[in-house]
Amino acid sequence: MKNNYCVIMAGGVGSRFWPYSTEKRPKQFLDFFGTGRSLLQMTFDRFSKIIPIENIFIASNSSYKNLIMEQLPEIKENQILLEPARRNTAPCILYAMNKIEAINPNANVIVTPSDHLILKEEEFIRTVKVAMDYTQKHDKILTMGIKPHRPETAYGYIQIDEKVDPNSNIYKVKTFTEKPNLELAKIFVESGEFFWNCGMFVWKVQTILSAFDNFMGEMSNKFRTGKCFYNTQEEQSFIDRIYKNCTNISIDYAILEKAMNVDVMAADFGWSDVGTWGSIYEHSDKDVESNVSLQCKSLLYDCKDNVIAIPDGKLAVIQGLEDYIIAEADNVLLICKKSEEQRIRQFVNDTQVKIGKEYI
Amino acid sequence: MKNNYCVIMAGGVGSRFWPYSTEKRPKQFLDFFGTGRSLLQMTFDRFSKIIPIENIFIASNSSYKNLIMEQLPEIKENQILLEPARRNTAPCILYAMNKIEAINPNANVIVTPSDHLILKEEEFIRTVKVAMDYTQKHDKILTMGIKPHRPETAYGYIQIDEKVDPNSNIYKVKTFTEKPNLELAKIFVESGEFFWNCGMFVWKVQTILSAFDNFMGEMSNKFRTGKCFYNTQEEQSFIDRIYKNCTNISIDYAILEKAMNVDVMAADFGWSDVGTWGSIYEHSDKDVESNVSLQCKSLLYDCKDNVIAIPDGKLAVIQGLEDYIIAEADNVLLICKKSEEQRIRQFVNDTQVKIGKEYI
Repeated sequence: MKNNYCVIMAGGVGSRFWPYSTEKRPKQFLDFFGTGRSLLQMTFDRFSKIIPIENIFIASNSSYKNLIMEQLPEIKENQILLEPARRNTAPCILYAMNKIEAINPNANVIVTPSDHLILKEEEFIRTVKVAMDYTQKHDKILTMGIKPHRPETAYGYIQIDEKVDPNSNIYKVKTFTEKPNLELAKIFVESGEFFWNCGMFVWKVQTILSAFDNFMGEMSNKFRTGKCFYNTQEEQSFIDRIYKNCTNISIDYAILEKAMNVDVMAADFGWSDVGTWGSIYEHSDKDVESNVSLQCKSLLYDCKDNVIAIPDGKLAVIQGLEDYIIAEADNVLLICKKSEEQRIRQFVNDTQVKIGKEYI
Repeated sequence: MKNNYCVIMAGGVGSRFWPYSTEKRPKQFLDFFGTGRSLLQMTFDRFSKIIPIENIFIASNSSYKNLIMEQLPEIKENQILLEPARRNTAPCILYAMNKIEAINPNANVIVTPSDHLILKEEEFIRTVKVAMDYTQKHDKILTMGIKPHRPETAYGYIQIDEKVDPNSNIYKVKTFTEKPNLELAKIFVESGEFFWNCGMFVWKVQTILSAFDNFMGEMSNKFRTGKCFYNTQEEQSFIDRIYKNCTNISIDYAILEKAMNVDVMAADFGWSDVGTWGSIYEHSDKDVESNVSLQCKSLLYDCKDNVIAIPDGKLAVIQGLEDYIIAEADNVLLICKKSEEQRIRQFVNDTQVKIGKEYI
């Protein structure tokens, strides 16, 4: 247990929920479901039940340091890893693994996004325990594969091979497939052989550091040169110096798709990446006309299937809307059909170009 | 000219434009058309071209004193008449006439709403001059009748009788009809005999005070007892004492429909009562898709025929709306089909009952 560590990656920008989430306060820091805890806090709460609090690390962008300290007063400053630039997941994870190795070379680590929703917490905890036991005993890179419930085209899929052990839910990996088209996604789901890559990984630090040595040698060497700086006053300036020159690459592409020792654990713990307004809508309480009002008061007439997210204390009086997103924050009001939400990124770009950066 | 006076009635609550206009800041105090001047200021500007500024009086509710002084720094405190209660137009006008009589018993007065729009200002000024000349010479109660351009069912209509003089546009009045049904309104418009009652009246103080003596004797006596208080430090406390017990009645019902010396001037100076979002929409600049954005920035996609009124400096990003009102102020966001705007009053009531008075 004391060898078990957790790295929560909390550097996302969350422009898909603009203006409700903004670069100043991205999705992981918001209490989307009105529980009183942000997605990051809920993630921390979940892991604090199985990992010692002092072994939980938060990796994020420098600009979010204060937000993290504010939301997670339980952790020490040394448990916050600050990336001076956005370089995707591989450099972030490599940094975290080097830092943890310097504390405990026998560390067994779970790496997780900070902004996902887990509905079946008991099943989740049971699954993570099994996963960490497995990597403790085997030099494996273990990914969490989520049993798909719909032919989602926005996710990566992992195809399973044979079971590593007839009594477990852990399989060898046959292939990785990024964002299939709808037709292919339907075949994937029906086959029963494909699982969603939810971005949660388990391994011993030694296992993953060896993989970095093999597949990302140059980057790995760079981080190893800081061995005596990790967990000292010099760590940040060392990171600030080397980080910007790191390749911008995901852990999936850098390691998982190349390494031979990757297994997948088939899991089903009510996972959602809360990646769209549609998923927020799906997981929120609804009124009799199936409208969702996030933390705000609303008075609705001839309205159904809408999701309304305006600031706390504000009142929305709406007549005659069906299947819309109504979101407001700071100085921006967004109204958009739910079915058109993939255009929000374009709206953000247009706003930046045509109106001004101060609205982003 | 020095006998010419003007009373601008500015006591309305303007709940039809909630939440854009509120009881704290009703319609007449708002710059609906982005000209830099509120409707009240525009009304004042118009009359200041033909009436000496010191002869222009503003009658309103006590609660709007500061707003009036702020918006019209040109006038003195004694030119603001403060009603301690809402009692419709008859008591308000009777108060103003007594006050003006105490200053100038030969005063010739035009009484006007504060929150209407006049598009043809030159024609308006010409018309008002003719009207005031006429009442100066005749003991007549002259109403302004607007040539109707559509069968509006929300207005009162004045039917004309014969001309008082073949060279003028002034007629004797045959009948007054309040809010006809659509069928009748169509007949009215086609006949050419009916004009809209726009709530603008011209008379000598002596003429209207005699009419009050005849038709509202008790109320008239009450106001006459204050003769020595008007335009002194004691005026307000006298008014505060008698006003609440006045009958709540309109000048139309109290006097115009009863007096025999009522004439109507047929006018056509681009008048709008700006009584609906539809009329705001009609009179505002539109983008290529016929959307109106009142004093706010907007980025619109697949949108047409909407009117957007959110606070200055705020940005509306809207996709997929047609023919809607989007209005916001303080802590309320309203979205409503333009065709359903008559329900806004109900929304205000519902908000008060179900949500709380602080949102009104």
